[in-house]
Amino acid sequence: MIELRRDPISSRWVIINDKRDFEYPDHENIKILDKKLCPFCPGKENLTPPALVAFDKKGNRIDSSSKDWNIRVIPNNKPILAIEGSISRRAEGLYDKMNGVGAHEIVIETSSHDRSIDSFGEEAFAQDIIVAQERINDLKKDLRFEYISVFKNHGQHAGETISHPHFQLVALSIIPRNIKDEMVTAQKYYEFKERCLMCDIIEQELSSGARVVAETDSFLAFVPFASRYPFETWILPKDHMPDFRTLHDKKKIDEMSAICISVFRRLFKVLDNPSYNLVLKALPLKQDFLQYYHWHVEIVPKITRFTGFELGTGMYINPTIPEESAKFLREAE
Amino acid sequence: MIELRRDPISSRWVIINDKRDFEYPDHENIKILDKKLCPFCPGKENLTPPALVAFDKKGNRIDSSSKDWNIRVIPNNKPILAIEGSISRRAEGLYDKMNGVGAHEIVIETSSHDRSIDSFGEEAFAQDIIVAQERINDLKKDLRFEYISVFKNHGQHAGETISHPHFQLVALSIIPRNIKDEMVTAQKYYEFKERCLMCDIIEQELSSGARVVAETDSFLAFVPFASRYPFETWILPKDHMPDFRTLHDKKKIDEMSAICISVFRRLFKVLDNPSYNLVLKALPLKQDFLQYYHWHVEIVPKITRFTGFELGTGMYINPTIPEESAKFLREAE
Repeated sequence: MIELRRDPISSRWVIINDKRDFEYPDHENIKILDKKLCPFCPGKENLTPPALVAFDKKGNRIDSSSKDWNIRVIPNNKPILAIEGSISRRAEGLYDKMNGVGAHEIVIETSSHDRSIDSFGEEAFAQDIIVAQERINDLKKDLRFEYISVFKNHGQHAGETISHPHFQLVALSIIPRNIKDEMVTAQKYYEFKERCLMCDIIEQELSSGARVVAETDSFLAFVPFASRYPFETWILPKDHMPDFRTLHDKKKIDEMSAICISVFRRLFKVLDNPSYNLVLKALPLKQDFLQYYHWHVEIVPKITRFTGFELGTGMYINPTIPEESAKFLREAE
Repeated sequence: MIELRRDPISSRWVIINDKRDFEYPDHENIKILDKKLCPFCPGKENLTPPALVAFDKKGNRIDSSSKDWNIRVIPNNKPILAIEGSISRRAEGLYDKMNGVGAHEIVIETSSHDRSIDSFGEEAFAQDIIVAQERINDLKKDLRFEYISVFKNHGQHAGETISHPHFQLVALSIIPRNIKDEMVTAQKYYEFKERCLMCDIIEQELSSGARVVAETDSFLAFVPFASRYPFETWILPKDHMPDFRTLHDKKKIDEMSAICISVFRRLFKVLDNPSYNLVLKALPLKQDFLQYYHWHVEIVPKITRFTGFELGTGMYINPTIPEESAKFLREAE
């Protein structure tokens, strides 16, 4: 079964999917797959579904079945959501449900198993950005999809099970409630101030400097004022740029890559190769420009636990002071 | 520093608190404290702050410094929020913050270190309910407080660090966003249907039976239709009862205790003594009656991990089918 069900009290859609790996009672301790068994390594292409697209070391598109790939995009063979089928929203008494329709792709970032993101060259990460855009543009053509979540799990505590460098895209047939809420809040701010909330945040962070981690001409990395997690770092375009897919300019892509790599290296140094998640917060697919929202990247080291307090209230407890986290990261290079 | 800061994009308050235990890099692997060092055991009262209240084995109130206690309520000496001070809401540019004012109490449920909740007698859990109500009523007198979170962390994966049975209460000077959102949704439903959403949920669950785990005259335990987590179980009063503090009738308290113990024992059996969190979802303190909301208890085994997808979208992926989880639990006794 792969289904979306809406909780009527929170109004949130939950994905019910019993077709993925779920080992109980060891689920908390799922080990990272041994290199010898890695299905993402060159020569093991038969262990994965056929590639959707492939790129060589220079970032040129090549035949998807070519063995000379450096980047390879494959469907996840245990997807969060299933590509086939219609959405078919329907009721179950007072409840709402629909088929779990979507897409789930894995971008294998390099043919090399052992290259970690902090030893990644900036050119390699720039290629990641280009491939992510290419995949988003391709998935957008499927009009069933409303939103694409792009994310990376690095390290066991962050949910990584295969250590060969890769990131993932999941296309959803709904806009997640969290994203909708952010858009609504940003829109209300715009209606009130006639300015973009994120532009104002950037201006205040640049002016204060206390939470800045790194900066380029076009991008700012900072620890948010109300960070939920220790050393949480966001990277935003400084100028008003709502849509990630408009990041075309090669110079800007290189800058974005450089600032991301800089943040990774600082986290690696300060936190000794922590597990982390990276997420891209992009616009819903059917919106091209918004006066009140920017795409951005959030990097979250996984180093706190979630207890009954967080479960019951939805509130986070950050045991570190954002300004201090930022200072450590800023001074790390 | 203990401060509440509001994230302007999500509108959520985050607690910034650098005064609690935070061990890095071992935070994921914090060990449960050895019994010999347990500060909650009889004879170790000097290792904790003086008790606020104490009760004997029969549930009678006794002198708070008495050594003959069976239940003992103490302030947490590393509280999430600090009891002293004024709230002092203020701006920092476009951001909002306030002092981290609140209360944080620990209810030591029994003088016996090794009694686990699944071997707890129903009378003992009934006393827990009475003590929780007593503490809520006491904390409510402090007009700075708007909401009390009552929760239990059982097992290392659920955030437990001391295994001596205990639960916690945290009084907040705000109503958490999640709670506000639930109230708003429930109110909208009431305005639309002129019926309480939770009463309708109970009616549908009783009628269907597919997700029922256990039932008494006055209470229903079921796995929610859109459960976020495997084997998540909610316990609701069947009749319209908004306010937990109106659960006075000893027969009903005993029933509530019996059904909770029943759920714990089923989880213990089906999942082999899992880590879990228990939360009480009660009304905001300054509301006594609502036509559209019930207090309830949520019990959530901690057996899935949180990855970049959940972080980026706020959506949960449940790898089990609620009806199947319910069937396992139902058939466990």
